[in-house]
Amino acid sequence: MLEELKKAVYEANMLLPKYNLVTFTWGNVSQIDRETGYFAIKPSGVDYDKLTPDDMVIMDLEGNKIEGRYNPSSDTPTHLELYRAFPKIGGVVHTHSPWATSWAQAGRGIPCYGTTHADYMYGEIPCVRCLTKEEIDTAYEKNTGLLIVDYFKDKDYEAVPAVLCKNHGPFTWGKDGHEAVHNAVVLEEVAKMAARCEMINPQVKPAPQELQDKHYYRKHGANAYYGQK
Amino acid sequence: MLEELKKAVYEANMLLPKYNLVTFTWGNVSQIDRETGYFAIKPSGVDYDKLTPDDMVIMDLEGNKIEGRYNPSSDTPTHLELYRAFPKIGGVVHTHSPWATSWAQAGRGIPCYGTTHADYMYGEIPCVRCLTKEEIDTAYEKNTGLLIVDYFKDKDYEAVPAVLCKNHGPFTWGKDGHEAVHNAVVLEEVAKMAARCEMINPQVKPAPQELQDKHYYRKHGANAYYGQK
Amino acid sequence: MLEELKKAVYEANMLLPKYNLVTFTWGNVSQIDRETGYFAIKPSGVDYDKLTPDDMVIMDLEGNKIEGRYNPSSDTPTHLELYRAFPKIGGVVHTHSPWATSWAQAGRGIPCYGTTHADYMYGEIPCVRCLTKEEIDTAYEKNTGLLIVDYFKDKDYEAVPAVLCKNHGPFTWGKDGHEAVHNAVVLEEVAKMAARCEMINPQVKPAPQELQDKHYYRKHGANAYYGQK
Amino acid sequence: MLEELKKAVYEANMLLPKYNLVTFTWGNVSQIDRETGYFAIKPSGVDYDKLTPDDMVIMDLEGNKIEGRYNPSSDTPTHLELYRAFPKIGGVVHTHSPWATSWAQAGRGIPCYGTTHADYMYGEIPCVRCLTKEEIDTAYEKNTGLLIVDYFKDKDYEAVPAVLCKNHGPFTWGKDGHEAVHNAVVLEEVAKMAARCEMINPQVKPAPQELQDKHYYRKHGANAYYGQK
Repeated sequence: MLEELKKAVYEANMLLPKYNLVTFTWGNVSQIDRETGYFAIKPSGVDYDKLTPDDMVIMDLEGNKIEGRYNPSSDTPTHLELYRAFPKIGGVVHTHSPWATSWAQAGRGIPCYGTTHADYMYGEIPCVRCLTKEEIDTAYEKNTGLLIVDYFKDKDYEAVPAVLCKNHGPFTWGKDGHEAVHNAVVLEEVAKMAARCEMINPQVKPAPQELQDKHYYRKHGANAYYGQK
Repeated sequence: MLEELKKAVYEANMLLPKYNLVTFTWGNVSQIDRETGYFAIKPSGVDYDKLTPDDMVIMDLEGNKIEGRYNPSSDTPTHLELYRAFPKIGGVVHTHSPWATSWAQAGRGIPCYGTTHADYMYGEIPCVRCLTKEEIDTAYEKNTGLLIVDYFKDKDYEAVPAVLCKNHGPFTWGKDGHEAVHNAVVLEEVAKMAARCEMINPQVKPAPQELQDKHYYRKHGANAYYGQK
Repeated sequence: MLEELKKAVYEANMLLPKYNLVTFTWGNVSQIDRETGYFAIKPSGVDYDKLTPDDMVIMDLEGNKIEGRYNPSSDTPTHLELYRAFPKIGGVVHTHSPWATSWAQAGRGIPCYGTTHADYMYGEIPCVRCLTKEEIDTAYEKNTGLLIVDYFKDKDYEAVPAVLCKNHGPFTWGKDGHEAVHNAVVLEEVAKMAARCEMINPQVKPAPQELQDKHYYRKHGANAYYGQK
Repeated sequence: MLEELKKAVYEANMLLPKYNLVTFTWGNVSQIDRETGYFAIKPSGVDYDKLTPDDMVIMDLEGNKIEGRYNPSSDTPTHLELYRAFPKIGGVVHTHSPWATSWAQAGRGIPCYGTTHADYMYGEIPCVRCLTKEEIDTAYEKNTGLLIVDYFKDKDYEAVPAVLCKNHGPFTWGKDGHEAVHNAVVLEEVAKMAARCEMINPQVKPAPQELQDKHYYRKHGANAYYGQK
């Protein structure tokens, strides 16, 4: 079972360079097995072209390393808090993908300007504040997770499977690592087109609510009809 | 005959990833056989790297599925309305190609700033309005087609083989699926260069009419002399 | 001898897709043999991936086709006027490369903002005006050449081997087709960086004259010391 | 020993085209052996796809050529001054990578807008002034090095391993040629995201100091915990 999990997480990690979402080691994917509560994650600072399935690190939800010769990603405590607070997710991704990171650096959420965005994410993709000095000094990566969790406490984290951390970069999630990477690709495309559309029309407004609803619910929920049943 | 049509539509669809016009499954090509009134179209939500000619779905102009194991693209009713109203076209393309989609999100038509544009498309590439809530709720994809058709009712759809749907993305057409893809590539290049030229000179004006005429008619109509007759 | 010329021109043409300077057939390279006065040029509208050395068309400086099964590029009369007026050039290139074309559409010459530009081109790369309706209607491509020639009549065409035609795109030249393509690549890089540097600093000024001189003369003329003598 | 140095420098040079940091021959890497005081550097103006380890030129810190059939890079005197003044560096890179060069042409240092920057470089990446006419005319490349050295005389050149030369382009350094190239890649990514984030939010401010500190010291110094110890 752990072998399968490591293989799935390895393959999801290898999609990051495939979709041009990472430079060097600037990204990581994890996936959880909800029965055991174990999750696998990329080791810290290991090059993508040297990575093997066996290099993945197995962690539990208390932050203990269960298996693996390497240190887990330094962002592991953030992944862990998301798994704890969002019971329906099975995978988490962090990258420094350039367009999403540019919005994070700009300190702005990404408005929903069109159906590409609405097909996957319902409404604005939020940008959460920087941590305070105290939050940074005590437990930076864990507090990053808690801040995201706090933002979503009265919101639907399944309908908006992405967040920007101010001056840092994006996290995305999904039902498994593969879907979380899929959402990271969508986020990067949406971030690129939103920046360009503001350049083309500085007075642009978000797409009408009824169009956002149509596209989101064409793909999600009981009445979805996109794809093969 | 249907085999040939499916093969042609498959090949035209595979040009979309080749020319970097699609991410994931965000695009589709169809082509019609005017004798039978049947058209072939990409199945909904199937990955490009798994697609085969046999996966194409055959439809008639009443919207009935004639052949195929999959559901057709969810945009099928839009393609259908274009085939009904534009008797001289044989192929239709829809994508979310990033530059054209950025203009669509910005809600602006693309002015003709140069000869690259004028070589293929005569005058501004229009951006049609969003559908109303009622139009969306009754028959979204069909009404998208009807809106495009209405816009062109007193215009030459052969001279401007492309349209942007506000907050959504582009549709292009041509004498077959291959030419419709060709026009989708042109549109993306033209959209990119128009955005950049406004960045370089915010006061830029469209190209002089006589230059637009020269380039369009150098390639189209009785006096064309570009290419090998 | 003609075989060699055709081969050289074929190879120079194939550099255009290699360096991402062309979409479809939007570009052409020619090269002249000054002894016979014959030049070879790409045929009009033939795809780059079907091109062979034997498809090149041989022309003389009166505009007569000497050899070749195809029509020459529709831009042939422009190339011809440049060869006539600029005795020291041996190759000419026309493309619609996106950044250079964006400047041409914007109607602006490219200021010399740095040493990348100064290493190859001395001072601003000019943008010549649109042709008048009469100039277009009589002999569009020939008049495009004459307009460029007129602009350079009191300038050094070797020191600035590139020009932008307003609302159209760039022409570059060099001692042969290969060098003309090299200059087309430089132009595209310089056009890209100039647009971005104006975005980063809208008040940017051209590089100091002494720095432009240093870099240009480090690579050109009697005191050049760049490269392997 | 020289063979090993030449091989290392050759391999570091070949990373420049791999990471899309150079067009043609617009870049060079060197690496020094501190015991002998010899450094190897790319020859001037030789194409990357023709380069071999044996083409590298060996120099001493007085500027004498020790070995090699070619002339060294014309930027050799700049590398030399950096090696003399910065005893802890082992490799130097110069490129005209497009985003970093656009900032250099704009005459602006790159503010630290986020953690991608802070992970590698501590604070703003400076842009040093143009040389005066006299500095250019006497010893341009050597004076470029001296200007950089002067800027860093009261700063930590290890914490900011990059500089922009106004109207010219970037230099980066590191413990060897490979790390210097790594820093050149980081610089280009950081330059790209900083430009885009100013486009998305023209009022953007640098990242809070405590966040910059956290990320820099997570990877550097006694308390670093990123990676595999």
